[in-house]
Amino acid sequence: LTQASDALTKAAVLTETLPYIRTYHGHTVVVKVGGEALDDPQLARVVAEDMALLALVGIRLIVVHGGGPQVSAAMQQAGIEPRFVAGLRVTDDASMEVVSRVLVGSMNTALVGRLRQAGLSAVGLSGLDAGLIEAVPTAGPEGEDLGRVGRVEIVRPDLLTTLLRESYTPVIASIAPSADGVSLNINADTVAGAVASAVGAAKLVYLTNVEGLYRDLGDEGSLVSEMKSDELASMLDSLSAGMRPKAASAVDALQGGVAKVHILDGRVPHALLLEIFTEDGIGTQVLP
Amino acid sequence: LTQASDALTKAAVLTETLPYIRTYHGHTVVVKVGGEALDDPQLARVVAEDMALLALVGIRLIVVHGGGPQVSAAMQQAGIEPRFVAGLRVTDDASMEVVSRVLVGSMNTALVGRLRQAGLSAVGLSGLDAGLIEAVPTAGPEGEDLGRVGRVEIVRPDLLTTLLRESYTPVIASIAPSADGVSLNINADTVAGAVASAVGAAKLVYLTNVEGLYRDLGDEGSLVSEMKSDELASMLDSLSAGMRPKAASAVDALQGGVAKVHILDGRVPHALLLEIFTEDGIGTQVLP
Amino acid sequence: LTQASDALTKAAVLTETLPYIRTYHGHTVVVKVGGEALDDPQLARVVAEDMALLALVGIRLIVVHGGGPQVSAAMQQAGIEPRFVAGLRVTDDASMEVVSRVLVGSMNTALVGRLRQAGLSAVGLSGLDAGLIEAVPTAGPEGEDLGRVGRVEIVRPDLLTTLLRESYTPVIASIAPSADGVSLNINADTVAGAVASAVGAAKLVYLTNVEGLYRDLGDEGSLVSEMKSDELASMLDSLSAGMRPKAASAVDALQGGVAKVHILDGRVPHALLLEIFTEDGIGTQVLP
Amino acid sequence: LTQASDALTKAAVLTETLPYIRTYHGHTVVVKVGGEALDDPQLARVVAEDMALLALVGIRLIVVHGGGPQVSAAMQQAGIEPRFVAGLRVTDDASMEVVSRVLVGSMNTALVGRLRQAGLSAVGLSGLDAGLIEAVPTAGPEGEDLGRVGRVEIVRPDLLTTLLRESYTPVIASIAPSADGVSLNINADTVAGAVASAVGAAKLVYLTNVEGLYRDLGDEGSLVSEMKSDELASMLDSLSAGMRPKAASAVDALQGGVAKVHILDGRVPHALLLEIFTEDGIGTQVLP
Amino acid sequence: LTQASDALTKAAVLTETLPYIRTYHGHTVVVKVGGEALDDPQLARVVAEDMALLALVGIRLIVVHGGGPQVSAAMQQAGIEPRFVAGLRVTDDASMEVVSRVLVGSMNTALVGRLRQAGLSAVGLSGLDAGLIEAVPTAGPEGEDLGRVGRVEIVRPDLLTTLLRESYTPVIASIAPSADGVSLNINADTVAGAVASAVGAAKLVYLTNVEGLYRDLGDEGSLVSEMKSDELASMLDSLSAGMRPKAASAVDALQGGVAKVHILDGRVPHALLLEIFTEDGIGTQVLP
Amino acid sequence: LTQASDALTKAAVLTETLPYIRTYHGHTVVVKVGGEALDDPQLARVVAEDMALLALVGIRLIVVHGGGPQVSAAMQQAGIEPRFVAGLRVTDDASMEVVSRVLVGSMNTALVGRLRQAGLSAVGLSGLDAGLIEAVPTAGPEGEDLGRVGRVEIVRPDLLTTLLRESYTPVIASIAPSADGVSLNINADTVAGAVASAVGAAKLVYLTNVEGLYRDLGDEGSLVSEMKSDELASMLDSLSAGMRPKAASAVDALQGGVAKVHILDGRVPHALLLEIFTEDGIGTQVLP
Repeated sequence: LTQASDALTKAAVLTETLPYIRTYHGHTVVVKVGGEALDDPQLARVVAEDMALLALVGIRLIVVHGGGPQVSAAMQQAGIEPRFVAGLRVTDDASMEVVSRVLVGSMNTALVGRLRQAGLSAVGLSGLDAGLIEAVPTAGPEGEDLGRVGRVEIVRPDLLTTLLRESYTPVIASIAPSADGVSLNINADTVAGAVASAVGAAKLVYLTNVEGLYRDLGDEGSLVSEMKSDELASMLDSLSAGMRPKAASAVDALQGGVAKVHILDGRVPHALLLEIFTEDGIGTQVLP
Repeated sequence: LTQASDALTKAAVLTETLPYIRTYHGHTVVVKVGGEALDDPQLARVVAEDMALLALVGIRLIVVHGGGPQVSAAMQQAGIEPRFVAGLRVTDDASMEVVSRVLVGSMNTALVGRLRQAGLSAVGLSGLDAGLIEAVPTAGPEGEDLGRVGRVEIVRPDLLTTLLRESYTPVIASIAPSADGVSLNINADTVAGAVASAVGAAKLVYLTNVEGLYRDLGDEGSLVSEMKSDELASMLDSLSAGMRPKAASAVDALQGGVAKVHILDGRVPHALLLEIFTEDGIGTQVLP
Repeated sequence: LTQASDALTKAAVLTETLPYIRTYHGHTVVVKVGGEALDDPQLARVVAEDMALLALVGIRLIVVHGGGPQVSAAMQQAGIEPRFVAGLRVTDDASMEVVSRVLVGSMNTALVGRLRQAGLSAVGLSGLDAGLIEAVPTAGPEGEDLGRVGRVEIVRPDLLTTLLRESYTPVIASIAPSADGVSLNINADTVAGAVASAVGAAKLVYLTNVEGLYRDLGDEGSLVSEMKSDELASMLDSLSAGMRPKAASAVDALQGGVAKVHILDGRVPHALLLEIFTEDGIGTQVLP
Repeated sequence: LTQASDALTKAAVLTETLPYIRTYHGHTVVVKVGGEALDDPQLARVVAEDMALLALVGIRLIVVHGGGPQVSAAMQQAGIEPRFVAGLRVTDDASMEVVSRVLVGSMNTALVGRLRQAGLSAVGLSGLDAGLIEAVPTAGPEGEDLGRVGRVEIVRPDLLTTLLRESYTPVIASIAPSADGVSLNINADTVAGAVASAVGAAKLVYLTNVEGLYRDLGDEGSLVSEMKSDELASMLDSLSAGMRPKAASAVDALQGGVAKVHILDGRVPHALLLEIFTEDGIGTQVLP
Repeated sequence: LTQASDALTKAAVLTETLPYIRTYHGHTVVVKVGGEALDDPQLARVVAEDMALLALVGIRLIVVHGGGPQVSAAMQQAGIEPRFVAGLRVTDDASMEVVSRVLVGSMNTALVGRLRQAGLSAVGLSGLDAGLIEAVPTAGPEGEDLGRVGRVEIVRPDLLTTLLRESYTPVIASIAPSADGVSLNINADTVAGAVASAVGAAKLVYLTNVEGLYRDLGDEGSLVSEMKSDELASMLDSLSAGMRPKAASAVDALQGGVAKVHILDGRVPHALLLEIFTEDGIGTQVLP
Repeated sequence: LTQASDALTKAAVLTETLPYIRTYHGHTVVVKVGGEALDDPQLARVVAEDMALLALVGIRLIVVHGGGPQVSAAMQQAGIEPRFVAGLRVTDDASMEVVSRVLVGSMNTALVGRLRQAGLSAVGLSGLDAGLIEAVPTAGPEGEDLGRVGRVEIVRPDLLTTLLRESYTPVIASIAPSADGVSLNINADTVAGAVASAVGAAKLVYLTNVEGLYRDLGDEGSLVSEMKSDELASMLDSLSAGMRPKAASAVDALQGGVAKVHILDGRVPHALLLEIFTEDGIGTQVLP
């Protein structure tokens, strides 16, 4: 009896979920994973497995990751005290070396390894590879010198297109060179948004460590399940420091042709899978 | 709370079932549907929807159908009394006209229509189309004249290959011409087996109106869940008249390179879907 | 001597006719064959052989057929009295079942078989296959309920294109489903015209059982050998009931981009072959 | 009445001849045209038109030509007396210059022009182009020094394949360089045979100025309509000087995989067309 | 020591020259070679080798040649006195036969042979081949009857494109038929310009027997190293008779989309190679 | 004058060197760059420019790099004392983190950046990407536990093939995962050899900091300019510790189908360019 009801449940779930495969088959989804999600090995494993399942049903995945906490830890280990201006890490040359080593040589390789274990042909990249991203140095909001901090100027999606066409999964660390070849530290949320626009992604998903976007900062009851790009644009100033670059990039990406942006709670197991395959969204979904 | 557990259930089912997509993506599965399954509109709808879901995840489906009961009914309506020798319908010229009209003009068009409603680009065929199947007339086991009854001599799979490559779903009625162009009535189970061999199918599925294959005819406890082709070959004589052509075709198909044959209870809702997507088989599975 | 003159005759005919191959090579010609032509086995064989020769020289053929007389006969056999309103068959559910069985299961399979014997890779289709034709129910000219009678709403030529590209010859029976999947009985002349427009045919040929189009109904001397679409449009009301749908479809097809429409006497042996390969037309030719 | 009988004749000829299109469609036929045929403008025009018709129905033509009479005339004009050893022209450097100018610069361009007027995209070639043919110098039968006379050593068919694939008609003049780049005068009959083998031609046709091959030289009644390669090989010594290289090349070509060799009377109008399109051969046909 | 400095020199040259490969890789360069250059065997060999090197690095070469001196010599040999009107050779039918024989049958085959020896797969062509060039007869500047002299009316580049795509090097002799198939004698400089426009060449190079273009005819100090198309157009009347058609064709070619025209001294060894691979031009370069 | 001699020199160098482009066009060359070469910015720039020139002329480059000195420095900075057994770095987990960060996050990104500045579309990889390399842990020669040190077990060249086909230049850091996903430290010389075999490279080049291979260690006069694989295999034990893995990998690569291995002095400017483009080798060349 249980087995029969189990079978019925399976059939019901399949009947509900499989049609979403048609919706996203062959489409590109960009997922930004926060450094926190990657720090919890159990969570990181589930995220990797969900991504493998998405690739399996024909979704073309691009993964973008940051690594703030891990960079700060490594800097302190190297005797450099992290310093921030308006949420942006002040990055001198020695710090930049740490950023590059931690993001590319440690976090990116670890994530690529994890995705490989889950069955994906992941390929680690940064903005340096084949000129994928070109950045320009930026100052702080009041003109502060931030050192080697930059923002995305150009995304050249050819390498991504080549890799996706051959069923590889690009995994991008958020550093990129300036036009004259100097590596710069870039906010990973904005990298995710710029890449999503450049490849014409169907979805951009932020896997965060909050439940979603709150209309009123601090009021848990004000969690937004769906909103328009315009409204989000008007709320930018009232958002938390961590949410602001996500929200700004979401607005840009939606203007750049991305069809939907999702801000999900990466701590919920299988959040990514459920978001793609079920009708009731999780977290916040932003429409153009 | 319920919603969370519901989400967990969905995630669990997806995690279990999606990997089967990788196994069968791009592979060809031949499904023989019995006339009985097509007589129950509710069941026929579920079968059509399951097939549409399979096509959705990249399985290349070929459907073969018979129509014994419907042919007998139409013959009686036309004043011809059905007559059988060793389970084979004696088919004079007038009967053959009825067979062709009912199988091709009524059951095939109805099934094509149903599959189309479920979202599939189904294309109705018979052995006549583009010389798909060539048959030879056969006599009964003791040399009885059966009239226009034949067995499959050649399958030319080019038309099927063309249609599958362009994502159409061929639906084959079991009549076929002899070399000199005379239409013959062919057993649909053997058509399914011969087609499965000819296209190199990964699976051949018989959707029947029994639970599976019984080791001892009449003993429900002797349902076989898995067996080897050799063993099945040695059991052929002890099988029921309806099961014998399925079993013989299964043995032939496995020798012809088909990887697995399944005999499923088509009356179980979503039997086809569950067979493809879950580990515990339903009915009987025969291996080479 | 005779042999030499015979050789000269052959050379002369070849020299005259072969250049037409260049004109039509790779172009699509839609031929509507009336039910009468298919009833005379000798004529039907010649028509099939002509079609095979056309395909041989690189013409892409699509065949459309009706089957009025045969349907009426089968209805009477089943105890249903055929009834017509303004030349349109009143078709209740039982009649529709007869229509489908006779057109698809009997006449289409017979024509496919004949073409196969003549060397063509013919594939039998109806409007149901892969959603080839979508129809809408129609009433009689004065709003009479005609039951399951429809007219062509949409032609989706993908399946035809796929088959023609691979050198198959589609043979279309004139039934088609409505948007919600109910099979309807459609006039074969209008199916031929709509299909010719949809595939961008170079020619649409009606093989009829009259010599062509008469300017004055009943006056044999008024046979028209060539006319413009406009003139034909203005004559529609004065035409015989059987000619009217051909003429109306011809006008539509010419507007839809078909280059020429021919109304030929299918009873003249090799009418089709001579029409394509010689300069002096047979029957009536209509230009845009 | 006459018109009807005329129509019937046309239909009969078409019905007889069109099936040959299937036989040769896409196959390659090499035609050697003698210098005599090219000297009669009327005949040359008919030959060109026949070739255009063959190309029209999908036959891939390669034309090879000699030009003995024209070369002799030009040599005499230049004050050089033609001299032959065993039918081979003794060719000193000054003579070779005349050969090259006449064959390539006069006869080849004239034939290319004629074929172009008849509707073919002809491309003039010699053995020099893209290393098409490599030759070796040869002495006379008793070791006589013949100067710049050679025989075919290698045929590199790539250029021919490229041109045929794009529907061009190669027209080859029979001169070719030695391995070290010295142009040599080659017998056009042997060039035709070697090219036919190299491209795997379905047919090699010699358009000559005799009725065919005679079993007994001088006895018109001994014209052979069909013979085997072996028999021809055994007859080589008894043949006329002009027929010998044709016959020897025919034997070689049949061994090299060419399916049939024809020796036709090029003076019969449309000989080429009738040979391809009718059952009763003209002239002599040699089988492997 | 010498070896080391030699190595440094090689490295320096490679470092300077290899980047030009990127600039021209896959681009088409049309080179017009004068009859004089072809008369000096040593020079002709070097030119052939330079062309082979250019092809080697991925440049698609088209060679056009004239043959004025050689034609005049052959005419005199045939007892015809060359006669010119405004630099154009008066060409009666007998002269045209000489032109065709010398250009196509002698100079073109010799150049093709030379290029083949240097490693190129050269294919000799004239305007007759596959309708490459169509010409119209022209009169002299004051309406003089020049006989069979023409100018380029149409260039159909398909054959060139086919050959270049398969890495063949077309070598074009400057004769071409009129629309009704009469061969005409065309100035090779204008053929080169028209072909360069038709294929969208990146460069058109005239290999001449002068150092370049002089601003003041006769003043060696007035050699122009670079000029604009407009300026050249305004100078046409003051140029030497031999330079005028080059200059006029250069102006036309630049208007027709060719990026640069070069007038080089073909007597300088490796002029062609150095022009392509070094920064300091040789001779005169004309820009749009 | 000087300019003329300069032009002659350029022409001479081009004439000598360009033919080598034919030899290597489209072939794959694997270059191993030592950590030392990358430490000297001037040298590293020249190497990058040479590589860009090679890619320019159609050579498909794969770059493999180590980073011994840089890793040791970083370990000491992190307070870990480097320890070696038989030339192999003992690598505990903390050391492996340093290896990964330095090789992938610092040296690989720097080299990718440099190649990008020189004009190459370089893509940084390690053995982790898309399962490019699978390694197995190895012990020291006497069974010593070396921690996370491994040797190449499998190279899966698909990702390299994809990137090369699209004109990207893979740059591989020498770390690779075991079958169960643990990153291991691998000798870069053996990675280069294994990759060269796997992709069927035409050449494997070791850019070292010695002049080449000495027959007698310590005797500069015993520099070998060319040797056979067999002889090198027999010398393995007598080689310096740094040369041994290069030599052993060279032997393996030559057995694996690589056509030539070169051991060059990377300190000589343009060593790579001269090796490819001139006849006199530099350093030592090993043949199968």
